[in-house]
Amino acid sequence: MTTPAPTWSFLGPGGTFCESALRQVAPRDVVLDPCQDVPTALDHVRDRSAVAAVVPIENSVEGGVNATLDNLVAGAPLVIAAEMAVPITFVLAGRRGTRLEDVRAISTHPHAWAQCRGWVHQHLPEAVYIEGTSTSAPARALAEADDAADAALDYQAVLCNPLAAEQYHLNIIAGGVADNPDAVTRFVKVCRPGRVGEPTGADKTTLLVQLPHNRAGALLDMLEQFSVRGVNLTRIESRPVGDSLGRYRFSIDVEGHIREERVQAAFIGLHRTCPFLRFLGSYPRLDSLPVVVPAGTSDKDFVVARSWVADVLDGRTL
Amino acid sequence: MTTPAPTWSFLGPGGTFCESALRQVAPRDVVLDPCQDVPTALDHVRDRSAVAAVVPIENSVEGGVNATLDNLVAGAPLVIAAEMAVPITFVLAGRRGTRLEDVRAISTHPHAWAQCRGWVHQHLPEAVYIEGTSTSAPARALAEADDAADAALDYQAVLCNPLAAEQYHLNIIAGGVADNPDAVTRFVKVCRPGRVGEPTGADKTTLLVQLPHNRAGALLDMLEQFSVRGVNLTRIESRPVGDSLGRYRFSIDVEGHIREERVQAAFIGLHRTCPFLRFLGSYPRLDSLPVVVPAGTSDKDFVVARSWVADVLDGRTL
Amino acid sequence: MTTPAPTWSFLGPGGTFCESALRQVAPRDVVLDPCQDVPTALDHVRDRSAVAAVVPIENSVEGGVNATLDNLVAGAPLVIAAEMAVPITFVLAGRRGTRLEDVRAISTHPHAWAQCRGWVHQHLPEAVYIEGTSTSAPARALAEADDAADAALDYQAVLCNPLAAEQYHLNIIAGGVADNPDAVTRFVKVCRPGRVGEPTGADKTTLLVQLPHNRAGALLDMLEQFSVRGVNLTRIESRPVGDSLGRYRFSIDVEGHIREERVQAAFIGLHRTCPFLRFLGSYPRLDSLPVVVPAGTSDKDFVVARSWVADVLDGRTL
Amino acid sequence: MTTPAPTWSFLGPGGTFCESALRQVAPRDVVLDPCQDVPTALDHVRDRSAVAAVVPIENSVEGGVNATLDNLVAGAPLVIAAEMAVPITFVLAGRRGTRLEDVRAISTHPHAWAQCRGWVHQHLPEAVYIEGTSTSAPARALAEADDAADAALDYQAVLCNPLAAEQYHLNIIAGGVADNPDAVTRFVKVCRPGRVGEPTGADKTTLLVQLPHNRAGALLDMLEQFSVRGVNLTRIESRPVGDSLGRYRFSIDVEGHIREERVQAAFIGLHRTCPFLRFLGSYPRLDSLPVVVPAGTSDKDFVVARSWVADVLDGRTL
Repeated sequence: MTTPAPTWSFLGPGGTFCESALRQVAPRDVVLDPCQDVPTALDHVRDRSAVAAVVPIENSVEGGVNATLDNLVAGAPLVIAAEMAVPITFVLAGRRGTRLEDVRAISTHPHAWAQCRGWVHQHLPEAVYIEGTSTSAPARALAEADDAADAALDYQAVLCNPLAAEQYHLNIIAGGVADNPDAVTRFVKVCRPGRVGEPTGADKTTLLVQLPHNRAGALLDMLEQFSVRGVNLTRIESRPVGDSLGRYRFSIDVEGHIREERVQAAFIGLHRTCPFLRFLGSYPRLDSLPVVVPAGTSDKDFVVARSWVADVLDGRTL
Repeated sequence: MTTPAPTWSFLGPGGTFCESALRQVAPRDVVLDPCQDVPTALDHVRDRSAVAAVVPIENSVEGGVNATLDNLVAGAPLVIAAEMAVPITFVLAGRRGTRLEDVRAISTHPHAWAQCRGWVHQHLPEAVYIEGTSTSAPARALAEADDAADAALDYQAVLCNPLAAEQYHLNIIAGGVADNPDAVTRFVKVCRPGRVGEPTGADKTTLLVQLPHNRAGALLDMLEQFSVRGVNLTRIESRPVGDSLGRYRFSIDVEGHIREERVQAAFIGLHRTCPFLRFLGSYPRLDSLPVVVPAGTSDKDFVVARSWVADVLDGRTL
Repeated sequence: MTTPAPTWSFLGPGGTFCESALRQVAPRDVVLDPCQDVPTALDHVRDRSAVAAVVPIENSVEGGVNATLDNLVAGAPLVIAAEMAVPITFVLAGRRGTRLEDVRAISTHPHAWAQCRGWVHQHLPEAVYIEGTSTSAPARALAEADDAADAALDYQAVLCNPLAAEQYHLNIIAGGVADNPDAVTRFVKVCRPGRVGEPTGADKTTLLVQLPHNRAGALLDMLEQFSVRGVNLTRIESRPVGDSLGRYRFSIDVEGHIREERVQAAFIGLHRTCPFLRFLGSYPRLDSLPVVVPAGTSDKDFVVARSWVADVLDGRTL
Repeated sequence: MTTPAPTWSFLGPGGTFCESALRQVAPRDVVLDPCQDVPTALDHVRDRSAVAAVVPIENSVEGGVNATLDNLVAGAPLVIAAEMAVPITFVLAGRRGTRLEDVRAISTHPHAWAQCRGWVHQHLPEAVYIEGTSTSAPARALAEADDAADAALDYQAVLCNPLAAEQYHLNIIAGGVADNPDAVTRFVKVCRPGRVGEPTGADKTTLLVQLPHNRAGALLDMLEQFSVRGVNLTRIESRPVGDSLGRYRFSIDVEGHIREERVQAAFIGLHRTCPFLRFLGSYPRLDSLPVVVPAGTSDKDFVVARSWVADVLDGRTL
């Protein structure tokens, strides 16, 4: 008897950058569960039809991926277990015979389009944009369309990643398409919460916190909950709470692990003073750089300080 | 001889919430210039083919409108001259005879879809989503499709605003569709910069500022440039700088007008300490609420203090 | 067999304001141990020849009493157990027959002199000051001097408190002498440390903390250790560390009791980040005003927040 | 006709450390005006009977000199024009023939006594202290006492500075007496205010500021007026306002000169938000160390930023 292979959901369809990210961390025998959108992929973890989901969380050009940030706070709790980065460059692909100068229409996902707009403007200023639901769906559609029926297909192209072009046997018209060749999308592996593991020394913690309403300086106060414990922020994204203009939640990444005292102290401070707080995981940093713990904020510093207070309470002041 | 009517660009097509916003502030005889996307609408102001543009800047559910935030910082300077709010509720509309129970596919813009997902899930759980390029384009497409050719059209519906349903003679299947009936989109009127006008006493100022790189506490320091002068933030949105992960610009609204001393002092502080700063306009607040100027931050307080320093320098200390 | 009456040391001699303060809190049968200076009074508690000492800690005109502040940090630990306020007004007293217009020399302690300088300047502008070692010693000296031997004594007066004038049978030439009739000296009862008692809800905590050397913003950082936990300061006095110019310790009073979570959290933060920290007692406030605990800083807030972190660590995120 | 030699007042009598400080900066032909206390010395400048006064302001062991700090704020404005440091070590001096083991009583000023207490405790544990009004007055008294009349004088000694022992022909029993051999007193030259001179690049500015009453965080807010402009504090002393307990003024030294923009900006911020502010002089630092101006706070940074704001107001945004 064998353990069945685990199912991982992800933002489909197959052949997108998200599948590339999944391949970085999933086991070999993973059963792929491509989902039509991020909420569906995450819900498959919540309802136990998948053990993990891989979804994009941040793009160096377009910013936070709202569907992911908002779903992680709205539904049953999930936690991030790993992060993966995928460089975002595209190929312009078409049917056999289509040349660059033939292309009149280009289809891709709006995020991809946003990252190639400059290139298209320069090389194909006349081309019309056709919005696609992913970077690979238009590739598949183009590949599966009936040749004979529609000659117009020869004037179409798609912007997709190399993997999709290969999977759907499309011809690469131009490679390395990207306005910003350093563009990167960060993906995360998301699981159901369980006992939190041990720190590696090079960890990151993600959380979501809502500011108290209508109080000048609330953001400043919230940030001081981190700074006073020497906890450094590496990402902060504002998201509207959604019930009216002017109220925000902040999605935040900090250096360190929730099993570390200084990070716990910051969480305790936030929990005390903010109306909503959600822990979204402590996990190894992509870059494996050890976190520099500022003087006075190591676990030992906290333990010694607490023990000093206990001594004071018992009259053992020295 | 008469002055030609002014041209205003906006995020088209006609019949969307953006046109409703424009109608709130444009002159009667305005010439409409509907554009396919926000960058185009703004560029028409830059190239003087329009005197003003109306574009969305913030949605109470979906957050900041990235295309607007990013374009305002990237191109030649523009400034916001007015803000308008439009409540966002939709109608589900279809061809004559289509009943709620018939609907199998719904088309609309992704932002609209995001704001009606719950309603659809409850009333039409089986309905398939077809992405549209605006809230009115699918309405027009449905209206213009050829009846005889495609009976499937009877099973389609669109989520659009009432104006679009009326313009395209569609039948309203359900009204007041919105997961959050209080949802509001804030639009702005954008112009070329000119001499800044006088404060009204109930003003707002928008700016964009980039943090110094790689300095712990940079966000805290930036916020203190406002708090130390008693300038209150009403909106803050992070946007990636775009060249690598972990670098942010912040799009910020503050209470007050750049002709007020405390706001100028904050700008001077930001200009001194941040690598990039752009003024995006001082304009009357939507709610007309007079700004409460904290003690010690009125124009008079600044003038008196500067005059005191001048006295000190000249040895007239009293 | 009876318990011997307890001995209390204090800043002598008898008949000074310090004895008045002691009388406010000492048991009836107390054995008085007047000491020549504050260090001696405190050392008598340290060496167990007294169970408590009463010494001045702060004067509303002259400021902190350095001898007390400095001795509490230098020697073996002691803690403050109570505070008492004594209004500081003096009588001008002399031998029988001495009239106001006769007075040519006035003797008293320099602190007392500092608080009556204006009155003397107005009423006895020609009078010479003779420094005394306390407010009562000159009274005693004047009373005990030999009448016959020195007629000059008829031209002398002392500034002392009414009790001393009475004890030494001097004649009151003028009463209510004080440049500032609201002047108050705060005295403290000091004991050897023991198990810290329970809060009353209207408590104060005294501490001494030294800033890290040579770091811009160190004072700001130190104060944030209090503000981030909603702990309010009611007194702060700088004292030189003593080894070179520019290094300071701060003697601080805060609202609240060290058995309260927010005060403990502030102490833990200080212990982690400052090179020297001494707890100097939690005790009832003189004014009995209940401490207002800011939102998010009650003991319950801390307990709930810690329990939330424990849940998170065990995977019980809700 | 010649210009009369200038008169300088100082804390007398002659032969104290204060005269040593005066000699460091006064012209050769200065007319000495020794005063009995600091207020008198300062008043002689106010009433033009002296052109300058030299008084102590801070002692590395005993802290701020209250008489100086308080008088500078109370009377007509004066400004500090220079600072001088004098190392504080004493000699134990007596009449010819008095040996260390003979000494039974020691007289000196209380501050001097405080700085030699440990030495006396170790070498002459039985010696009685006799309070003196200065460090040189007891030396003079001992020298001038009539030999024949009082053999007890052979058992007396004084702690004074070497200059006084020399002036009064006393015998040095022990030299280099000081508990802390690095003890230093900082003296200041004080003048009537006039047009403020130019910065040297290594300057210091002294000021006195009172916090708004009864506002939690007022001290933090005040310190931020400096930190947000990159102005570094080198000294901060709390002084009671004097009308009731719990209200403070702060005497502060900062790096930099009031002719520098960042210092002026801090002064403007303080003037706007604090109920009392007094400028007490910008003058060269004792150590001549050039002030490090933090990034973004140079005069040029301020000028460029102000000019940017002017451009914005005129519509010249670039």
